[in-house]
Amino acid sequence: MAQQHLDPTAGPVAGDTLAAYLQAQATEFLRALRQHRETGGATVTATNGAEEAVDAARALRRSARRISGTLHTFRPLLDEGWSEGMRPELAWLSGTLAREHAYGARLERLLAALHRLSGSSAFPAQASDPDAHPGARAQLPSEKGALTVGAAKAGALLERQLTLARTRAHSAALQALGSSRFHAVADNVAVLASEVPLTASASASVTGLKPLAAAADERLCDAVAGLPLITAGHPYNAEALVHGLSADTAPQPQDSPWHQVRLLLRLHRYAREVLFGDEAPVDVRLLTAGQALDRHRDAAEAAAAAASAARTPRIAPATAYALGVLHADQRHEVEAARFAFQRAWMRETVGTP
Amino acid sequence: MAQQHLDPTAGPVAGDTLAAYLQAQATEFLRALRQHRETGGATVTATNGAEEAVDAARALRRSARRISGTLHTFRPLLDEGWSEGMRPELAWLSGTLAREHAYGARLERLLAALHRLSGSSAFPAQASDPDAHPGARAQLPSEKGALTVGAAKAGALLERQLTLARTRAHSAALQALGSSRFHAVADNVAVLASEVPLTASASASVTGLKPLAAAADERLCDAVAGLPLITAGHPYNAEALVHGLSADTAPQPQDSPWHQVRLLLRLHRYAREVLFGDEAPVDVRLLTAGQALDRHRDAAEAAAAAASAARTPRIAPATAYALGVLHADQRHEVEAARFAFQRAWMRETVGTP
Repeated sequence: MAQQHLDPTAGPVAGDTLAAYLQAQATEFLRALRQHRETGGATVTATNGAEEAVDAARALRRSARRISGTLHTFRPLLDEGWSEGMRPELAWLSGTLAREHAYGARLERLLAALHRLSGSSAFPAQASDPDAHPGARAQLPSEKGALTVGAAKAGALLERQLTLARTRAHSAALQALGSSRFHAVADNVAVLASEVPLTASASASVTGLKPLAAAADERLCDAVAGLPLITAGHPYNAEALVHGLSADTAPQPQDSPWHQVRLLLRLHRYAREVLFGDEAPVDVRLLTAGQALDRHRDAAEAAAAAASAARTPRIAPATAYALGVLHADQRHEVEAARFAFQRAWMRETVGTP
Repeated sequence: MAQQHLDPTAGPVAGDTLAAYLQAQATEFLRALRQHRETGGATVTATNGAEEAVDAARALRRSARRISGTLHTFRPLLDEGWSEGMRPELAWLSGTLAREHAYGARLERLLAALHRLSGSSAFPAQASDPDAHPGARAQLPSEKGALTVGAAKAGALLERQLTLARTRAHSAALQALGSSRFHAVADNVAVLASEVPLTASASASVTGLKPLAAAADERLCDAVAGLPLITAGHPYNAEALVHGLSADTAPQPQDSPWHQVRLLLRLHRYAREVLFGDEAPVDVRLLTAGQALDRHRDAAEAAAAAASAARTPRIAPATAYALGVLHADQRHEVEAARFAFQRAWMRETVGTP
């Protein structure tokens, strides 16, 4: 995104740069919304238009997250009541839209792991974006010969549960997009596309953005400093599975600080986009660290889904056993992701302004 | 062990050095056998004399392995018919004696893992030698509160199965020690303690031992060269669990080359003992590598025991789930051990003559 120069006699002031970024994201949001409406949002079944609907939903989430994150990081420059009212609504929207994709990706991850754990090479490597290939799962039944009874039954159980969850998430997303709550969000985004409600202090020079971006960076570094990076840097520390059999069915509390860093890293990235636009140099270190945390989140949620499936009443012991192996495998993926994050983060900072 | 100098006017010749080592091991074997008979071999129950019986059984295994390994490595210097007849008998004996200890250690390892996986800190860290503390397992019931139903049931099932196996192994060991087959072994070892049946070529100088020890070293290095060390050196490569859910219930074929290296490393160590006696410098690198392979073997067998317990008919799904988690945990220990071996082995050779 190019930076707007409203006053050709001077460099862009903080407000202009911020407004240009928010307007571009709002415009993208409205474009994605139009695209989504044209496709009818048909993402669950592999009909024509499914890919476009997936692309549109992703673009909607993408711009909603960026608007929300930017309102947060640069809130002193924006009308407080307006932006504080808008952020939870954007979070609700992107959360609702993300769920359908997440269930699909989780199922793909777990089925791929079941095949890997069965020594089966028939199953393709985990697709990076299963939503983009809605037909991929249709190949499964013919490949089940390579699985043991337990693994096949575990796979069928997960497929049933996660497909149901995905279908429900799809309905919920469609319902959300038709709700008056969503229309209020869309109206607000439309306002944003034409005029960003800046405060008076936003008229300062572009350096007014930098302290706020730096504060976001500082929050990120503080959160990373709180992570158990020394442990994470020792391979095979067996930390991630420490509560693998505990009675607590809630998400593992040890994961929360990592999830928090993932969110702060995202805010940091958006702040850099605001400051530098398309000219922002790609920071491979932060990119790798972010990918590790995405993998951390995905594996943690897949592990929880396997544990949850194992609590289904009246399943066969062989099914439960396979789900136990699968749970532990994904918790080790969690541990591997922490190791990868530690490696990426500890690498010398290069090219970060 | 000090090297014998039968001829004070010359350095020890190959035959003398070899004979001295074998005689010392044979003497140790006979001493351990007397000690074992005095204690009545009471290792399973925590009676008086249990520790002595454990020590005696360990000393018997220890010297039997050393005699057998030395007969193998230096076989061109020994009467062929005699040593080829003796080796399988020593292997049978040390194998029979090792089983009781192995089942006990396996149970301790699995119960410690179940507690670790339950986030329970009540259970003491895995004892390095559970046999030396026969009362340790008696503490378990009061600690089971920290376990989920599944983990507690899995622990109880493993305890039942492995205690039964251990009791049977104990009976088998006692029966073996009273058999005529064993008396023949003991008679042969008694012969060895007084006179080692050397060949004529064994009268060469001490350098006659070195080529044979070097050949043992070479066999070790060849076997290590066949290991997938590049994969093993990448943390979290997920190789060890690749057949975690395969239909094959046989021990994992991928483990065999590692077990083989473990045996060759042991032969290499015994050959160094023959050559250098007590003066052999401790090679920390080989020591660490050997410990990693011991851990590899123990974890692989523990994982197999968990998988085997999961095939018990009519177990509860929660039990099967816990056994699945446990199996995967131990297979990751296998992977961690391979990583540790790779690290130890790749370290620059220091102090190895």
